[in-house]
Amino acid sequence: MTTNFFDVKDSRNLTMLVDFYELTMGNGYFFNDVANKTAYFDMFFRRVPDGGGYCIMSGVQQLIDYMSNLKFSKEDIDYLRSKNIFNENFLNYLENFKFCCDVWAVPEGYPVFPNEPLVTVKGPVVQAQFLETMILLTINHQTLIATKANRICRAANGRPVMEFGSRRAQGYDGAVYGARAAVIGGCSSTACTIAEEMFDIPVSGTMAHSWVQLFPSEYEAFKAWAETYPDNCTLLVDTYNVQKSGLPNAIKVFDEILKPRGLRPKGIRIDSGDITYLTNKCRKALDAAGYEDVKIIISNSLDEHIILDVLNQGAKIDGFGVGERLITARSEPVFGGVYKLAAIEENEEIIPKIKISENEEKITNPGFKKIYRIFDKASGKALADLLTLNDEVIDESKPLVIFDPIYTWKKKKLTNYFVKDLRIKIFDKGNVVYKSPKVTELRDLAKVETEKLWPEVLRFENPHNYYVDLSPNLWTLKQNLLQKLSDDYEGNN
Amino acid sequence: MTTNFFDVKDSRNLTMLVDFYELTMGNGYFFNDVANKTAYFDMFFRRVPDGGGYCIMSGVQQLIDYMSNLKFSKEDIDYLRSKNIFNENFLNYLENFKFCCDVWAVPEGYPVFPNEPLVTVKGPVVQAQFLETMILLTINHQTLIATKANRICRAANGRPVMEFGSRRAQGYDGAVYGARAAVIGGCSSTACTIAEEMFDIPVSGTMAHSWVQLFPSEYEAFKAWAETYPDNCTLLVDTYNVQKSGLPNAIKVFDEILKPRGLRPKGIRIDSGDITYLTNKCRKALDAAGYEDVKIIISNSLDEHIILDVLNQGAKIDGFGVGERLITARSEPVFGGVYKLAAIEENEEIIPKIKISENEEKITNPGFKKIYRIFDKASGKALADLLTLNDEVIDESKPLVIFDPIYTWKKKKLTNYFVKDLRIKIFDKGNVVYKSPKVTELRDLAKVETEKLWPEVLRFENPHNYYVDLSPNLWTLKQNLLQKLSDDYEGNN
Repeated sequence: MTTNFFDVKDSRNLTMLVDFYELTMGNGYFFNDVANKTAYFDMFFRRVPDGGGYCIMSGVQQLIDYMSNLKFSKEDIDYLRSKNIFNENFLNYLENFKFCCDVWAVPEGYPVFPNEPLVTVKGPVVQAQFLETMILLTINHQTLIATKANRICRAANGRPVMEFGSRRAQGYDGAVYGARAAVIGGCSSTACTIAEEMFDIPVSGTMAHSWVQLFPSEYEAFKAWAETYPDNCTLLVDTYNVQKSGLPNAIKVFDEILKPRGLRPKGIRIDSGDITYLTNKCRKALDAAGYEDVKIIISNSLDEHIILDVLNQGAKIDGFGVGERLITARSEPVFGGVYKLAAIEENEEIIPKIKISENEEKITNPGFKKIYRIFDKASGKALADLLTLNDEVIDESKPLVIFDPIYTWKKKKLTNYFVKDLRIKIFDKGNVVYKSPKVTELRDLAKVETEKLWPEVLRFENPHNYYVDLSPNLWTLKQNLLQKLSDDYEGNN
Repeated sequence: MTTNFFDVKDSRNLTMLVDFYELTMGNGYFFNDVANKTAYFDMFFRRVPDGGGYCIMSGVQQLIDYMSNLKFSKEDIDYLRSKNIFNENFLNYLENFKFCCDVWAVPEGYPVFPNEPLVTVKGPVVQAQFLETMILLTINHQTLIATKANRICRAANGRPVMEFGSRRAQGYDGAVYGARAAVIGGCSSTACTIAEEMFDIPVSGTMAHSWVQLFPSEYEAFKAWAETYPDNCTLLVDTYNVQKSGLPNAIKVFDEILKPRGLRPKGIRIDSGDITYLTNKCRKALDAAGYEDVKIIISNSLDEHIILDVLNQGAKIDGFGVGERLITARSEPVFGGVYKLAAIEENEEIIPKIKISENEEKITNPGFKKIYRIFDKASGKALADLLTLNDEVIDESKPLVIFDPIYTWKKKKLTNYFVKDLRIKIFDKGNVVYKSPKVTELRDLAKVETEKLWPEVLRFENPHNYYVDLSPNLWTLKQNLLQKLSDDYEGNN
C-alpha cells in the first residue's frame, strides 16, 4: 500500500476537543485586551515511565494535522454562544480563526529526556493557550506508547513484535494511533487493519480460537485453514490442549496438505500455558517432523519483563504478539507531559516567565529555548543535551564545559564533539513547513538514534541519568528569577 | 444544550477498525462454505478491576452507532484486494455488506458482574465474528472508565467530581468517550468541551496557572478574571504560594470587585501542596472574611484512595477535579472483556460450544443464554444474578433454589422475590431497535441501580462476591460438554 487514506479515514474536526478553560481564558484575554500579546509555551515531561532512561518522541504528524485544520463550525459558535458567557468579539474571532503561530518540535522517533521542550509554541496568547489540550493529549499518548513499545521490542532482542492490542485499547484512537506509535517504537506490524490503510504500516494476524471451535474438530479446522491459506499458514494450537491435540494436529495437517504441494508452513501460535515448557516441546516436535523453519509465535499478556524472563529461561520463540500491556502501557499508563508559559513579549522584548513550586523538580525552565544534542566525534555517541536560550550558538571548535544544574560543582569539559539542534520548525506563522516521514521510516530513525545512546542509558532498570544541562546563560536567568520571586514573598509578608 | 452534535462530530467510518484476523477468518468461512452458519457469541469479563465488587456497563450507544454504520468503501475493498489473499466472492460480500445480526446487551448504567454475557450476537458467523474487535474495544474502554469513575464518585461521598483528564487520556476518543463514561459512572461534569456538544453533558472549567503568570501580578490576574466572570468567579490560588499570596489575593479581589456589586464568588481551586492542611487554612480564612459559601475545589492526581484519605483527615473540600487517574483508570488500565463462541446452529438446532482451558476460571458458559437479576421483594435489594438458557422462564410464585456452580452443595432457597430479564435487544435482524437514554439519565440510572446492591458488594476493598449462578439446565449442559471433551482427549491419547 502506498496510498495514504488519512483524509478519508480521519476527517473529524477536533477543534472543539479542548478543555473548557482554554475557552474561558481566551474570552478573558479578549476582555482584558491581552489576546494578541505574544506568548511562548513549552511542552515537556518530568520523568520517564517505568523507570526507563529515555522516551521516544511520537505524535508530531497528528499535531500538524490538528493545527492545520483548526476551524470552528457555525454549530460550534452557536453552541458557545448558548453558554451565555462569551463576548461577541471573542466569538467573531473564533468564527474567523486563522492560525498564525510558530511551532517547533523534536521530530518523531528521537530519544528525548525529562525537562526538554519537546514542543514550543510562539504566538498570540489566545492561540498558544488554546493548543494546550491537544498538544498534551497527542504527544502524551503517542510518546507513552512508542516508549513502551521500544522497551518491549528491545526485550525481544531482534525477534519481531506484533502489536495485537486493539480490543483492549482505551478507545478507538487508542487502538489506531496507538498502533502507529507502537510501530515507531519498534513493532514489526499491527493487527489493526485500519492502521495499515491510514499509515501504511504492515498488518498481520492469524486465527482466533473461535475458528477452531466452529468446526467439528480441531483437525478439520486446521485443514480448512491450510486449504484456505496454503502459502501463509500459521495455526493456533492451544484451543484444546497444545501437546495432546494442537501440535499433533498441526503437524498432521502440514504433512497432509502442504507437504504434497511442496509448500512450507509459516508457524504455530500459542496463546496460553507455560511458555518455556510448551515452546521447547513444540520446537522439538516440529524439528523432528522436519519443520525446523516453522516459527513459534507467543501471545499471552506479554510485556518486556515476561519476554526477558522467558528468553532467559531458554524458551524457543521466534516472534511475539503483544496486546493489552503495550497498547495501554499498563505498567504506567499516564505520560505526564505539561504545557507551561515560558515567556511573553513586551515591546518586542522577550520577558521570561517561570512557574515555581514547593516541589523543586516542578520548577520550569524560563525563556525561549533551544535543545542541543552533543555527540562525541570519535564514537558518535550522544554525550549530553544542553538547553540554551534560543539565540545561543555553540562554537564546536572550542571545549565546552557543562555542569549539573543543581550540584553546579559537578562539571564536565567536552572536546572533540559536535552538536545538533534537536528541534525543527513545524509551523511558520501558521503555515506547515514540515511533514513527518513515513511511519516505517520513523521506526528506522528511532533505531538509529537510540543506538547513539550509551548502553548505560538503555538499561531497563536503574539506567544512567542522561545529562540534560542548562547553558550558563539559561542557568543564570533561572536563578535570578527564582531569587526575585523568593524576595517578593518575603517582602509581601 | 439539547441538540446532539454526534453526527457532525464523529462521522468517521470505523468499519475497518478490525483485527486483521477477523478478515482472514471471514475469507476462510467463505472458502470453506460456512460463512452463513448461524453463530452465537458472548462478550463478558472475568474480574472486576481494582478488586471492586461490580462494574458499570457503558458503551452500548457507541456499539449501536458502529453497527448501524458498517460499510466498506470502494477504497477499503481496493485496499483489501491489494493484499492478494482475499477471494473475490468474499470481497463482493463486503462491498454489498448488509448487517443482519440480532444483538442483545445489558443497558448502560447497570451494575454488571463477571461471567455475565453483557453482549450477545446471533448471526451468520462471518458477521458475528467480524464484530469482535469493536465490541470489545467499545465496551472494554467505556466500562473500565465508568467503573473507575463510580469508585471515585462514591469516595467523594456526594461532593461533585469533575472529569479533568483530556490532556492525559490515551488518544482523542480516550478523552471524549472517556468523558461520556465518566459521567455515566457519576461525574458531575467534564472539562472536555466537545463532549458537551456531542453528549449534552455539563462542561466546567476555571483557569490555568498560565493565566496568572501572564499578568504582571497574581492580584492583577485575579482582578482581570473577576471582571470577566463576576457571576461565576473561581480563582486558582496556588500559582505562587497559597497562604502567602493566592488566598489573600483572592479574598482581596472578592472584596474589591464582587462585594461592591452584591455578587458572591463561587470558589477557589488548589492544585498542589498538602490538601488537608491547606484546605483547613483556606476554609478558616474564607469563613473569617465572610465567604462561608465559597467552595474549595481540589485537583491534583486524585483517585478514590486519596479522596477517602483526605476526607478522613478532615480536609475541607466541596468538590474534586479528577484527571489522569480517572481518564486512564491508572491503577488498572485494562478491562479484560473477551468475546467467545457460545453456540452454532445446525439444521435449526442450537449446538452449544464451550472453550476449555487449563485455567478453570477461563472455561466459558456454553449456549444461548439469558441473565435474570433476582430482587428481594421486601427490601428491593438485588440478591443474585442467574444465568439460564434463553428459553427458561422463572416462575416467581414458586421458591427458587440457586447454588454455587463450583461448590454445588452451597445452596440458597429464595422466596418473596421478583426477577428482571437484564438484557434488551438492540438489533433485530440488523435493524436498531433501541436507543440509549441521555448520558445524564444513564448517570441517574446507575445511581438507582447501584443502590439496589447490598453495602457489602459496594465496599472498596474485599467486597462480598455477588452471586452469579447457573440454572440447573445450564449447569448440567456445561458439565456434560466438559465431560465429553475430557473423554475425547483420553480417547485420543
